[in-house]
Amino acid sequence: MCPNIERPVNVAPESISEFISQCSTHTVRRGKDMAGFYIEEPDEDSVIYEVYELESSGHIKLAVTIMKQGKAGNEYFMTKGHYHEDERAGEVYFGLKGKGLLLLQTKEGQTDEMELTSGAAASIPPGWAHRSVNIGEEDFVFLAVYPATAGHDYGAIEKHGFLKRVVEMDGKPRVV
Amino acid sequence: MCPNIERPVNVAPESISEFISQCSTHTVRRGKDMAGFYIEEPDEDSVIYEVYELESSGHIKLAVTIMKQGKAGNEYFMTKGHYHEDERAGEVYFGLKGKGLLLLQTKEGQTDEMELTSGAAASIPPGWAHRSVNIGEEDFVFLAVYPATAGHDYGAIEKHGFLKRVVEMDGKPRVV
Repeated sequence: MCPNIERPVNVAPESISEFISQCSTHTVRRGKDMAGFYIEEPDEDSVIYEVYELESSGHIKLAVTIMKQGKAGNEYFMTKGHYHEDERAGEVYFGLKGKGLLLLQTKEGQTDEMELTSGAAASIPPGWAHRSVNIGEEDFVFLAVYPATAGHDYGAIEKHGFLKRVVEMDGKPRVV
Repeated sequence: MCPNIERPVNVAPESISEFISQCSTHTVRRGKDMAGFYIEEPDEDSVIYEVYELESSGHIKLAVTIMKQGKAGNEYFMTKGHYHEDERAGEVYFGLKGKGLLLLQTKEGQTDEMELTSGAAASIPPGWAHRSVNIGEEDFVFLAVYPATAGHDYGAIEKHGFLKRVVEMDGKPRVV
């Protein structure tokens, strides 16, 4: 069914569409899918981000996330963000296009943030919830690599939110 | 001992030295460590490549490889290459600097190759041996992400070599 998934594959900024056309699970998050996440609700039909998760038989999984450029009120478009169900599962992001900010936090209340631009990578250790924010002038696209056992725990974030938000102040992104 | 290893970390081309200065296992491969790999032996003291493998408590490991630019005879500098001991362990490479060619093969004799330039990624599925070759004009630097269980099986490669080689012909790299 998925003839190419066991073949080596290159994921360059110019070949993203080829990569995601392979066997993948496609998730689209629109404004209406994110009720309660932003202080000011985004337009309900606007696409905020799309995730293409590749099927794979091995221990690690790959996903490409395409985040639209935009804001809900003064908050930059962001992903829901999640902890992993598996406490020993970290994740590595690789920036393919645009510019993002990763918001990170632990259940003990530690917070951190990292910029991720195309051509750079970011390592998220086990135990850190992660949310991506598009702070650039175009789509922000990144490849994520994570253990197949990771799982997604959105519940804690949906209930309590993230400790920090990224808003535009004086024309620039600020973490508040 | 390793205070930062559980913190989120950014790995941009300009911050590689900071990344590898963290707790890592450093391996240097010189010409004398690669006897029998090239048709014409490289200078025995020349550094061919260095690997910095980060310590980590999670399911995935990270390593940065810095490959020098050079040739042994007409063969471009390359890594030893290996299969994983764990047959379900694939690997993902992120190009950080320069330009490389990945040679890939299965135990059934399938071969493949992929270019990897800075800003692009490459997915190596489980079961494919992989060797990196620096075909650019500068150091070729990449970040590898792989399951902690992967293990390295160098034996098959040391015994039988790779099915393909990358040599300079008419001033250009050719896979032969």
